[in-house]
Amino acid sequence: MYKIELSSDDVPKKWYNINPDLPSELPMPQNSEGKEQIENLSKIFSKGVLEQEFSQDRYITIPKAVREIYQQMGRPSPLFRAKGLEEKLNTPAKIFYKREDMSPTGSHKLNSAIAQAYYAKKDGIERLTTETGAGQWGTALSLACSLMDLDCTVYMVKVSYEQKPFRKAIMEVYDGEVYSSPSENTAYGKQVIKESPNHPGSLGIAISEAIEEAMDLDNVYYSLGSVLNHVMTHQTVIGLELEKQFEMIETQPDVMIACVGGGSNFSGSMFPFLKDKLQGNSDCEFIAVEPRSCPTLTKGNYEYDFGDTKGFTPMLKMFTLGHDFIAPSVHAGGLRYHGMSPLVSLLAKEGYIEPRSASQEEVFKCGVLFAKSEGVLPAPETTHAIKVAIDEALKCKETGEEKTIMINFSGHGLLDLKGYENFISGDLAPDID
Amino acid sequence: MYKIELSSDDVPKKWYNINPDLPSELPMPQNSEGKEQIENLSKIFSKGVLEQEFSQDRYITIPKAVREIYQQMGRPSPLFRAKGLEEKLNTPAKIFYKREDMSPTGSHKLNSAIAQAYYAKKDGIERLTTETGAGQWGTALSLACSLMDLDCTVYMVKVSYEQKPFRKAIMEVYDGEVYSSPSENTAYGKQVIKESPNHPGSLGIAISEAIEEAMDLDNVYYSLGSVLNHVMTHQTVIGLELEKQFEMIETQPDVMIACVGGGSNFSGSMFPFLKDKLQGNSDCEFIAVEPRSCPTLTKGNYEYDFGDTKGFTPMLKMFTLGHDFIAPSVHAGGLRYHGMSPLVSLLAKEGYIEPRSASQEEVFKCGVLFAKSEGVLPAPETTHAIKVAIDEALKCKETGEEKTIMINFSGHGLLDLKGYENFISGDLAPDID
Repeated sequence: MYKIELSSDDVPKKWYNINPDLPSELPMPQNSEGKEQIENLSKIFSKGVLEQEFSQDRYITIPKAVREIYQQMGRPSPLFRAKGLEEKLNTPAKIFYKREDMSPTGSHKLNSAIAQAYYAKKDGIERLTTETGAGQWGTALSLACSLMDLDCTVYMVKVSYEQKPFRKAIMEVYDGEVYSSPSENTAYGKQVIKESPNHPGSLGIAISEAIEEAMDLDNVYYSLGSVLNHVMTHQTVIGLELEKQFEMIETQPDVMIACVGGGSNFSGSMFPFLKDKLQGNSDCEFIAVEPRSCPTLTKGNYEYDFGDTKGFTPMLKMFTLGHDFIAPSVHAGGLRYHGMSPLVSLLAKEGYIEPRSASQEEVFKCGVLFAKSEGVLPAPETTHAIKVAIDEALKCKETGEEKTIMINFSGHGLLDLKGYENFISGDLAPDID
Repeated sequence: MYKIELSSDDVPKKWYNINPDLPSELPMPQNSEGKEQIENLSKIFSKGVLEQEFSQDRYITIPKAVREIYQQMGRPSPLFRAKGLEEKLNTPAKIFYKREDMSPTGSHKLNSAIAQAYYAKKDGIERLTTETGAGQWGTALSLACSLMDLDCTVYMVKVSYEQKPFRKAIMEVYDGEVYSSPSENTAYGKQVIKESPNHPGSLGIAISEAIEEAMDLDNVYYSLGSVLNHVMTHQTVIGLELEKQFEMIETQPDVMIACVGGGSNFSGSMFPFLKDKLQGNSDCEFIAVEPRSCPTLTKGNYEYDFGDTKGFTPMLKMFTLGHDFIAPSVHAGGLRYHGMSPLVSLLAKEGYIEPRSASQEEVFKCGVLFAKSEGVLPAPETTHAIKVAIDEALKCKETGEEKTIMINFSGHGLLDLKGYENFISGDLAPDID
C-alpha cells in the first residue's frame, strides 16, 4: 500500500485546540511599555480568529463553508509510504509522508488562509494585508481571498521577491497585489529604506508593513500565516486526518518530524498526537527541524519579544533570536523567522518537542535523494524534515529497530528550483553558524 | 462530492490497445525511398514497445513492476468536480477534470516514461535519449530512468531551454543530462546550427538529434513521449481509471475534451471511451484542441510524413503541417509539433474526433479563470482543453442542457509561469494564423 487515502467526507468537522491540554499555562501576550498593542488587535483581526486565539475550548467547529472549500481544494490530503526511500536507505524503518504539497497552492498554508479569509468576510471586511517569506503563505492567502471575493495585498520579503519572480506571477494570477518589502507604501517601510537603501528585508519587517497598512484603514484586516494560536489550530486538520489514516493501517507513528519557521505545519500535523503524549498515552517523539542559520529553538532565548520588527504586535513569550535578527538569505525562506509559535515554544521548553537544526547543504542533498526515490520534489523548508527522517531511518538500520517515522511533507519545491540549481552547480552559499 | 478517488488496488492491470477496434485499418509506416527506417527501429526501440506498436491485442498486461511504480507515484489520479468553475459560469453543465497534474512530475507523461524505461532496462540497455518541448516529457523520462537506474539524455528545444531554465534544473535533480537543441552533439544538430546559427529549434529537430545519438550506440535506445501507438496505449491507464470513476458516481460523460500536440494525453483519457463509440454504444463527443498557431488537425493534410525533421523515422500516415514546419514560440511548447498520432489522425479523419483550435490569448484567459475558481494552475497546454470546456458549458447555459463535461487536466503550469506573467502584463506574442 503506497497511498492511504480518505474520502471528502473524512475532512474533520472540528479543529483541535491544544490550549486546554498544555502542561502549564500559556503566558499571555503583553503590551510593551506605554503601548496598546493588545487593544489594537481588534482593529486588525476578525472576531472569529481573535476568539479562537484565546479560546480554552478543546474542539472548535469548522464553519460549513470553510469545510466545503477544504473539500473543493482536495482535502483530505493523502498519506504516502516512502518505500522508494526506504529501499534506497536499506532501513527496517517504515517512512510515511503526509502530502500537504497536494494543495493547489503547493503547501499546507491554505488550511489557515481559507479560515482567515472566511472570518474576515463575515465581518464585512474588503481586503486583507499580509507578509510572505518564501511565497507559500502569500500564494495561499491570495487564492483564499479570490475564492471569498476579497482583495489581498502581500508584502513579500525583498530577497525572495527578487529570487522568485514566479511567486509574484502566481499570486497575481489569483489577483493578489504584491509589493517588495521594505516598500514605499508604509511609513515604516520608508524609514527602513531611508536608513538602509539595500536592505534585503525580513519577515519581521514585512509583518510590520502589513500591520501598519491594516491599522490605518477601516475596511482592511491583517492576516498572519503562522506563529499565532489560531493559525496552529486551523492547521490541525492535517493531524486529525493523519490520526484516521494511521488507524486505517493499524499503525502508530514512533517519530514525527516537521520543519519549523513560525511553527504552523509542525503544530498542525502534531498537536493531535501531542495531546496523547500530554495525557501520558503515547511515547511518540516529536522533532522540530530548523535551519542552522536561523536557530530559534536550538539557540534562541525563551522570553517576551515582538512578533514583528517595528513592534506593532504585542510581546509574545516565545523562543526568539531577537526581533531585529536578520537571517542569512538561505533558500528556505519560510524558516527565516526570528521567533516561534508560543505554543510550540512552551512545549519545547517543557521537553515535549525536540528541536534540531540542519545545514543548507545537507538538507538539499536529502531533498535530491528524496526526489529521486519518491518522485516528489520537496520545498527547501520540507527538506529539513526529510534530513532528520533520513538520520532516524539510518539509526534504525544500525539498531535493527522497525520504527514508524512520519514526515509532514509541508510543500513542494517547484517554485524553488533556483535553490536546487545552486545546489547542483555547487553554488549554495555556506551556512552562517 | 468534489473528489472521486480510487485506491491503489484500482490501478488497471492491463492497458487498452485501440488498434483492433479501429473503423478502418491503420495505414502501416513506410520507408522513404532508398532508406531503411523501419528496419532501423529495432536498433533504437526495446522489444517490448515494438511488439506493442504493432500489436492487435485489445488488452496488454501491465508488467507488475510498472504497475507498482504507477502506485508508488500516486496512481490512480483523482477525478475532481469543478464546482467552483460551474458556479462562476452559472452553467447547468457538470464539469469534471482528471488530475494528471498530480503526478510527481506534474503531467500524464510519466505513464509512458515508466513503461518505456522498464522495457529498455529489460533489454539490458544503459541509457535512453529523448527530445522534449515544454519539458514535461523530459522531466518524466528523467525520473523514470532514475527509478530504473538508467541514464537519460534529453534534447530540449532551444526556445524552451532558454524560456524555462528551471525545467533543466528539475531534470538534473533526477540526473537527466540536458542539451539545448539544435546542439553540437550530433551531426544533424551541427548542420542545423551551421545553416542557421540562431535557429530556435523544434520538436522535429530534437527528435532527429536524439535518434541519431541512439542509432550510433549499442547500449542506448531512443524514447518518444507521444505520437507512436505504444505511447497512446500506455496512457490508457488514465481512461481506464476514468471509466471506474464515472461508474462510481453513476454518470457518463457527454463531452470529453483534451488538448493535442502529438496526441498522448488525448488518447490516454479517451480511447477506452472511444471504444464504446466505435462499437455503437455511446453518443459521447470527443474534442481535440490545438493551438491556432500549430493547427495540425484543423489545417494540416492527412498524408505520409516523417515524425522528425531530418527523416530518421519511417513515414507515418497522419495529419501534418510538414516535417519542416517550425511553429511560432507560443508558451504551450508541448503542442508545437508538426504531426499527430496516426491513431488520432485516423479517428479524426473518420469523424470520431472533432478537432478545434484556440488562440494563445483566449486560452490563458481561461487558464486564469480556472485557477481562480478551482485553485489549480493549468499548464498552457491544458488551458486549451479548458477553453473549449468553458465554451461547451456556456452553450449549456443557453440551451439549459445539463451535460457532463470531462476535461483531461494533463498538467499543471507551475513551471510555465513566464507565460502567465506575459499574459497578465499584456506581453503575450500574438498568434500567427
